[in-house]
Amino acid sequence: MYDHIKGFRDFYPDEMGARRQVIDTLEAVGRRYGFREVGTPALERTQLYVDKSGEEIVEELYAFTDQGERDVALTPELTPTVARMVVDKQQELSKPIKWFSTRPFWRYEEPQQGRFREFYQTNIDCFGSSEPESDAEILAFTADALTELGLTSGDFEFRVNHRGVLGGLLDSFDGVDVPSAIRAVDKSAKLDQADYHALLVDAGLTREQASTFDALLSTEDLSELTDFARTERLENAVTNLQDVLAATEDFGAREYCTLSLDTARGLDYYTGVVFECFDSTGEVSRSVFGGGRYDELIESYGGQPTPAVGVALGHAPLSLLLERADVWPEESFSTDYYVLQVGETRGVAARIVRELRALGHIVETDVSGRSFGAQMGYADSINAETVVIVGEQDLANDEVTIKDMNSGEQTTAPLDVFPPEAGRPTYEDYA
Amino acid sequence: MYDHIKGFRDFYPDEMGARRQVIDTLEAVGRRYGFREVGTPALERTQLYVDKSGEEIVEELYAFTDQGERDVALTPELTPTVARMVVDKQQELSKPIKWFSTRPFWRYEEPQQGRFREFYQTNIDCFGSSEPESDAEILAFTADALTELGLTSGDFEFRVNHRGVLGGLLDSFDGVDVPSAIRAVDKSAKLDQADYHALLVDAGLTREQASTFDALLSTEDLSELTDFARTERLENAVTNLQDVLAATEDFGAREYCTLSLDTARGLDYYTGVVFECFDSTGEVSRSVFGGGRYDELIESYGGQPTPAVGVALGHAPLSLLLERADVWPEESFSTDYYVLQVGETRGVAARIVRELRALGHIVETDVSGRSFGAQMGYADSINAETVVIVGEQDLANDEVTIKDMNSGEQTTAPLDVFPPEAGRPTYEDYA
Repeated sequence: MYDHIKGFRDFYPDEMGARRQVIDTLEAVGRRYGFREVGTPALERTQLYVDKSGEEIVEELYAFTDQGERDVALTPELTPTVARMVVDKQQELSKPIKWFSTRPFWRYEEPQQGRFREFYQTNIDCFGSSEPESDAEILAFTADALTELGLTSGDFEFRVNHRGVLGGLLDSFDGVDVPSAIRAVDKSAKLDQADYHALLVDAGLTREQASTFDALLSTEDLSELTDFARTERLENAVTNLQDVLAATEDFGAREYCTLSLDTARGLDYYTGVVFECFDSTGEVSRSVFGGGRYDELIESYGGQPTPAVGVALGHAPLSLLLERADVWPEESFSTDYYVLQVGETRGVAARIVRELRALGHIVETDVSGRSFGAQMGYADSINAETVVIVGEQDLANDEVTIKDMNSGEQTTAPLDVFPPEAGRPTYEDYA
Repeated sequence: MYDHIKGFRDFYPDEMGARRQVIDTLEAVGRRYGFREVGTPALERTQLYVDKSGEEIVEELYAFTDQGERDVALTPELTPTVARMVVDKQQELSKPIKWFSTRPFWRYEEPQQGRFREFYQTNIDCFGSSEPESDAEILAFTADALTELGLTSGDFEFRVNHRGVLGGLLDSFDGVDVPSAIRAVDKSAKLDQADYHALLVDAGLTREQASTFDALLSTEDLSELTDFARTERLENAVTNLQDVLAATEDFGAREYCTLSLDTARGLDYYTGVVFECFDSTGEVSRSVFGGGRYDELIESYGGQPTPAVGVALGHAPLSLLLERADVWPEESFSTDYYVLQVGETRGVAARIVRELRALGHIVETDVSGRSFGAQMGYADSINAETVVIVGEQDLANDEVTIKDMNSGEQTTAPLDVFPPEAGRPTYEDYA
């Protein structure tokens, strides 16, 4: 017997059916917003990630040298790939470029609850607008998708921040390594205060500055920040953040957003608004997923300067939230009809099967030469709603038997008018 | 600028939209047959393929050693994975087990027309029945899927054979390496007769036997075979092949099937009926895709003996057939509404956008702070059917302007009743 690989999962039909419902909902909402599906490769040049994140990223990748001596990696995220695609066709694509896709990604990390080495995301990105409406649209899409999945405003919150707020504040202290300090903020929720401040000191703040900075981040009044440091960067960031939140008001998503100045997002490529989705009850303790604005990535990949904003909904952490809120779809088969053959009735049974399928229904029939009882047991195992029994005796009477599998009631229907030309015939129609 | 990897493709929204329509159709037909979706990993132990196909398969794989020292490979096909999954849960799964999935696979082969290193397939498999109805159901699904895509019986044919016919015939000659001879048959269409016969001679036939064997395979009368060699294996194979074809008659797929005794399928794990789909016009010259019965694979993977039959529809060769038959879906955007803002009208425009989306429509609006003309140009570029203009003057009159983008006609609608609570309001409703 062969095992599957650690951190990789097999999805059998029950669970896959539930996942498919979730994916279909996310994608349907994305389509309504005018995001268009793209298809992207599983492998990219390893250099694409090294240039963005440094050599140390390779340790987290499934990276290898292919038979043509290319250094390649299984894609650990979508953003570099779609950025490359925008650069490749930037003259042809009309802006804003609004894309979505659902697919697996891979990282060599230690699996834990809600985290796997092969993990699925639905990514939504918009390229070509730096306006606050573009950020707000991403937040509104995300809120719509989550409420369409059955979550309510009591279930989740988006903690919203702006990279320029952190950067602008940090710039006001001399000699700080801003990216290091932002990474410290990103880790702060998982650290006690002393360790957090120690990281800030490592990044170049004094102990006193670290305390001041930490205290400033807990304000809910953005004017306290601009009072503290009147830099242009900070003032622009505060204005932009306020504009984005105002736009979420018009777009129906403001109620899901809370200001959260210690939300940083780990990735260095964010430049503007960033947000993370959290379980409001705290039962799912980590960030469920997040997104933000990355206005410099396209240019850094050799493209024309192109503002961009996006979100990556990770399905595994999202499923934890949906399960916690008791809105994970039911994991069970659904089957409209089982057409049961008794004796030499395959010809008629097959005709009925074909006509029911032509009406769009899910229909199974015997392909194993089984007894009446075995077929009935199988029909039950696939949750068939209606069993159509095509027996030799039925056919002798020019009829079929229609059995409702929920009540167990059965009746007959005339063979020459079953199935009808439209609809979804059930026991009730003939009783 | 970064390039994508040779043999890997980026799908931009136009092409992806067409591909998605094809995939949706294949999957919808599969669901109607009661096939259930499974989700499967991109990596498997390399050993899974080596045990099945020998060490030489590694040359065709994207195989590497992961950071945990596992020898792994990007999955080159689905069958070994689903066979492993059946073995893993064989006690729990009620039979027949009917599965489908759509996903990419990877092989390190030279790209050519219709063949890529990363390629997409929809796989359909049924485990647990050895009855001819199970083979016929796979053929019927495939025919239904192709006709649902717009192909007709004049467009494609399934060339059907049975491994036991080839094997049974070959068994009747002494000292033949049957798998080698079957591989020779598999290549015969691409070889001239002398080279083909030479391969048969390499497999252990005399030159005379090779000619006899080759001639026998061109018969359309199966009794000629059983007259030539009255082995039990051959007789069983001929009977099974006839039974499967009879079942396709009942299942509505007989008209798409032709007997083709030199159709072998390259893979050694096939044990019964095999078939390949060809372009009837011959314009797409190679086999489009194929499938067959593989009754021994589950047992060879350590499971209980479990018969199985399936088909893998490769999307790239299928697209060649669909394009040849002029039924490839149109590659263009479709958008129901663009809501155009003029002046400070974001609040009302956003309300209209939300209500139209709540009706299920695809709706875009300005997120880039653009002029009237630029917004109209964008609405045109995404093929918006209707533009709803929300201008300051419109709002002063308590109305919005509804523009039909096809005719260019426009009219106004009262703001308090637009959009209505249901439906798809257009210019005609207000003209």
